[in-house]
Amino acid sequence: MSKGEKTRDKILQKAAGLASICGLEDMSIGKLAEATGLSKSGLFAHFKSKENLQAQVIQWVANMFTEEVLRPAFREQRGVPRIRAIYGNWKDWIDGESLPGGCVMIASSTEFDDRPGTVRDEIVNMMNTLLDVLTKSAQIAIDEGHFRSDADPRQFSFEFESILHGYHLLQRLLKDPDASKRSDLAMERLLSTYEATMSKNTEN
Amino acid sequence: MSKGEKTRDKILQKAAGLASICGLEDMSIGKLAEATGLSKSGLFAHFKSKENLQAQVIQWVANMFTEEVLRPAFREQRGVPRIRAIYGNWKDWIDGESLPGGCVMIASSTEFDDRPGTVRDEIVNMMNTLLDVLTKSAQIAIDEGHFRSDADPRQFSFEFESILHGYHLLQRLLKDPDASKRSDLAMERLLSTYEATMSKNTEN
Repeated sequence: MSKGEKTRDKILQKAAGLASICGLEDMSIGKLAEATGLSKSGLFAHFKSKENLQAQVIQWVANMFTEEVLRPAFREQRGVPRIRAIYGNWKDWIDGESLPGGCVMIASSTEFDDRPGTVRDEIVNMMNTLLDVLTKSAQIAIDEGHFRSDADPRQFSFEFESILHGYHLLQRLLKDPDASKRSDLAMERLLSTYEATMSKNTEN
Repeated sequence: MSKGEKTRDKILQKAAGLASICGLEDMSIGKLAEATGLSKSGLFAHFKSKENLQAQVIQWVANMFTEEVLRPAFREQRGVPRIRAIYGNWKDWIDGESLPGGCVMIASSTEFDDRPGTVRDEIVNMMNTLLDVLTKSAQIAIDEGHFRSDADPRQFSFEFESILHGYHLLQRLLKDPDASKRSDLAMERLLSTYEATMSKNTEN
């Protein structure tokens, strides 16, 4: 990275941290100036508009999610081991290992669903990409013989994503001491109804 | 309702509608004054502070949810028919039949999870109450012999809630034409693994 790119990366990291706590809309250039010690005018020169800053934060968070959740999981064996790794890494991500206020994508999904514009478009784009990755992972699990051949990979991606949203609620809002256990049990039930061996039982 | 109560109710309805679109934090007394045609000072006299207004909006939305989602479902037969009715009414609720921007509770859950205070406490309180209602509904399904006797009603409430969060994502953010189908399939899978007749098959 050039010096300019490094500065930009550091600013976006601060911005993503702020957005994870107070929300993307409330993450103003003023607050970011305070948090970084940079001038408002300097930040405006970098990002041109609040909307552009928000869209860049979404891209930055999505890149970080890829690095911390997806990429390490893709080093695992294809099929169910990889799906389990995505799940475990994603829980760590929600726990705030990387962003203090948890997942910016989950929070922004409800924050921006009624705010048309480039930020919403960016969130939709990233969420669809993620659902595609999950769908592909389920398809690989079918190809590997881990999942039943008649399983619907798109349906799997929906149910997988839903469990993580439920985990986010129990863990971050309700601070339920059983959040992790609840989520794990739901994931086991999901995997077991998709797994090839289970299908033989239920087909009886 | 007295005249004062009716006025308060009308204001809270407008406020909830605004919050469903722009979020609870962004629903300022200024915006509410514009939407209702009332003066800012009059609204301040009613609600004393923004925080108090927000907490009252949460209570108002929770009451409305009870009236539109839970109460009609509780007229259905105990057990699975009642659970199916809660599910159907809740989907309508998310579709924005009552609030233009969808579920304020789901949006506020991620908006306020890192904002300690009375508003967060109110959201936690309402969400826990809702999970308790779902847990009790699952317990009734066990008592009625619809669910397996060894089913975990609390686990059921988590998985039920998660599916609705997933539906909110697909329906309101992604505008996925299959959102309703995806959600229904997940709910059928959830019910089928809890239902008493299925357990006999999987116990083979």
